[in-house]
Amino acid sequence: MAKLIDGKAIAATIREEIRVEVRKIEASVGKVPGLATVLVGNRTDSTTYVRMKRKACEEVGIESFHVELPESVSEEELLNCVERFNADPAVHGILVQLPLPKHIDEERILSAISVEKDVDGFHPLNIGRLAMKSRTPRFVPCTPRGCIELLVRSNVNIEGKCAVVLGRSNIVGLPVSLLLLHRNATVIICHSKTQELPSVCRQGDILIAAVGRANMVKRDWIKPGAVVIDVGINSIPDASKKSGYRLVGDVDFDDCKDVCGMITPVPGGTGPMTIAMLLRNCCDSAKEAFGLS
Amino acid sequence: MAKLIDGKAIAATIREEIRVEVRKIEASVGKVPGLATVLVGNRTDSTTYVRMKRKACEEVGIESFHVELPESVSEEELLNCVERFNADPAVHGILVQLPLPKHIDEERILSAISVEKDVDGFHPLNIGRLAMKSRTPRFVPCTPRGCIELLVRSNVNIEGKCAVVLGRSNIVGLPVSLLLLHRNATVIICHSKTQELPSVCRQGDILIAAVGRANMVKRDWIKPGAVVIDVGINSIPDASKKSGYRLVGDVDFDDCKDVCGMITPVPGGTGPMTIAMLLRNCCDSAKEAFGLS
Ligand SMILES: NC(=O)C1=CN([C@@H]2O[C@H](COP(=O)(O)OP(=O)(O)OC[C@H]3O[C@@H](n4cnc5c(N)ncnc54)[C@H](OP(=O)(O)O)[C@@H]3O)[C@@H](O)[C@H]2O)C=CC1
Ligand SMILES: NC(=O)C1=CN([C@@H]2O[C@H](COP(=O)(O)OP(=O)(O)OC[C@H]3O[C@@H](n4cnc5c(N)ncnc54)[C@H](OP(=O)(O)O)[C@@H]3O)[C@@H](O)[C@H]2O)C=CC1
Repeated sequence: MAKLIDGKAIAATIREEIRVEVRKIEASVGKVPGLATVLVGNRTDSTTYVRMKRKACEEVGIESFHVELPESVSEEELLNCVERFNADPAVHGILVQLPLPKHIDEERILSAISVEKDVDGFHPLNIGRLAMKSRTPRFVPCTPRGCIELLVRSNVNIEGKCAVVLGRSNIVGLPVSLLLLHRNATVIICHSKTQELPSVCRQGDILIAAVGRANMVKRDWIKPGAVVIDVGINSIPDASKKSGYRLVGDVDFDDCKDVCGMITPVPGGTGPMTIAMLLRNCCDSAKEAFGLS
Repeated sequence: MAKLIDGKAIAATIREEIRVEVRKIEASVGKVPGLATVLVGNRTDSTTYVRMKRKACEEVGIESFHVELPESVSEEELLNCVERFNADPAVHGILVQLPLPKHIDEERILSAISVEKDVDGFHPLNIGRLAMKSRTPRFVPCTPRGCIELLVRSNVNIEGKCAVVLGRSNIVGLPVSLLLLHRNATVIICHSKTQELPSVCRQGDILIAAVGRANMVKRDWIKPGAVVIDVGINSIPDASKKSGYRLVGDVDFDDCKDVCGMITPVPGGTGPMTIAMLLRNCCDSAKEAFGLS
């Protein structure tokens, strides 16, 4: 059986580190970091994610500011809301929960968030700096940063290794590929048009799965001994559960657990890390604003 | 023997297309596109490149504005120069020839060029849009765009193919990797820390070499039938030449020419395409400014 990378425990350690830091910040400047969350509409998953993020803020002492807007909100109203938070010195991070309703131009909203408060790291200027060698992004997007942190805190050597990234989305696959590249992995980026996916994946000393397909990655897709980071969060029907469903990753855990060297579980792997990294980004942003970094 | 991808001929076709377009623009608005070139110091290679670019402008009817600044120029003076061109409505593209002297912050200068006139495409905001799915960069950097154009005009199918990019620089390797990814290739990015480079390269149905090492890529690095784009421009001593040197690529052409399906020569491959794409970007920028696109 592979070594389990316990994302929940690692995230708890990081949250504790941040809690201590927030207290120090408060002791030194009399203020705490602040995170603004903006929720549009009432999708169940988005509501849950925002609630979890706000709760996590509270636990470490980050102040949270929250706005809920109806599904029917106009782009202008949403932009105004973002602008108000841009101007508010108590707010160090602004998170507009995605996805947004179809009538709203997501790119326009994300580009309106001040680069200094873009704790999700999705601003194109930020992604540009992340992509380029020798440039420093203001914030590294949370889920990709969490993946790297899991590898680093598990003492996985990245340099010179072959890292296969399954998925190329703006929020996970692409930025995590760039981060692995900057850490000197040889990077292979795969997606829905990739041919012979199993054999491509099997080259990875490190395999990051971020496709959103329940249990897609099977045993024979994995190089024996590989480190597998499963970003997928998919709900599948499960009659034995009260809710009628359960969460699984993109990797078929039971099928793969014996062949890989290390693996993250779902839930309890990358999920808790994403939230921990959001707190990290928010705390770093406040330190910068307070002149403490 | 592989089919030769004749970059010189393809670039000539493109320049002719642009020449016709420039005439049409002039006929419709009474103005022509303008390119500003800024040369700092007197490096022989930079001086040559700038001269070639200005000459190419002239041939297609693009007006060129040129400033030469001494090696000792201050960052402020160089910024002022960029600002003047940013404000000048006759200028649609600004090219600051790289590399800049060590005392100047290259990132600061490149970021000062108006995104609307950044025909080199090196502004981080532009690279961010290039990196992200469903975002449109204002300009695609010239050499990477030239590589793709060579593939497209040679009817090479990119989708679903394995593309290996050797090199990850901000100006060639990284952006060309992103362009290939958006065209649905499975992309492998290699660099100086990659292990077993020959066998990694041998996976490429398409191989782009941009390392700056004379004749590094040998026959056994190439998948039989692969399409090879050689971006490298390296001068090596050659006593038989009057100049005492000659230009070779990163691919050992003679060693490889029988194994690949198509290959670009050096010189006469990607070099002329870079200049053609600069004219293309400048022309597109003018059309946008004149409301013609
Ligand atoms: N742990 C966490 O905190 C987070 C988890 N997630 C989870 O991660 C997963 C991915 O999310 P996200 O990146 O936003 O998803 P997207 O849907 O935006 O992207 C999915 C990517 O996977 C590729 N893909 C889809 N199907 C296949 C297939 N059959 N074979 C190969 N590639 C395929 C797509 O390819 P193409 O580009 O060709 O369409 C695309 O690049 C989801 O399960 C999501 O819930 C997301 C964010 C945070
Ligand atoms: N045709 C044209 O118009 C143009 C041609 N060029 C030419 O293209 C070539 C590359 O230029 P550029 O991208 O600016 O160069 P850089 O020096 O900026 O980048 C070179 C890249 O190659 C990698 N590399 C270097 N040595 C090795 C090695 N031994 N094994 C594996 N990888 C290696 C480096 O890796 P690492 O990142 O680990 O250091 C780096 O990523 C040059 O010859 C240049 O003259 C450039 C621009 C335009």
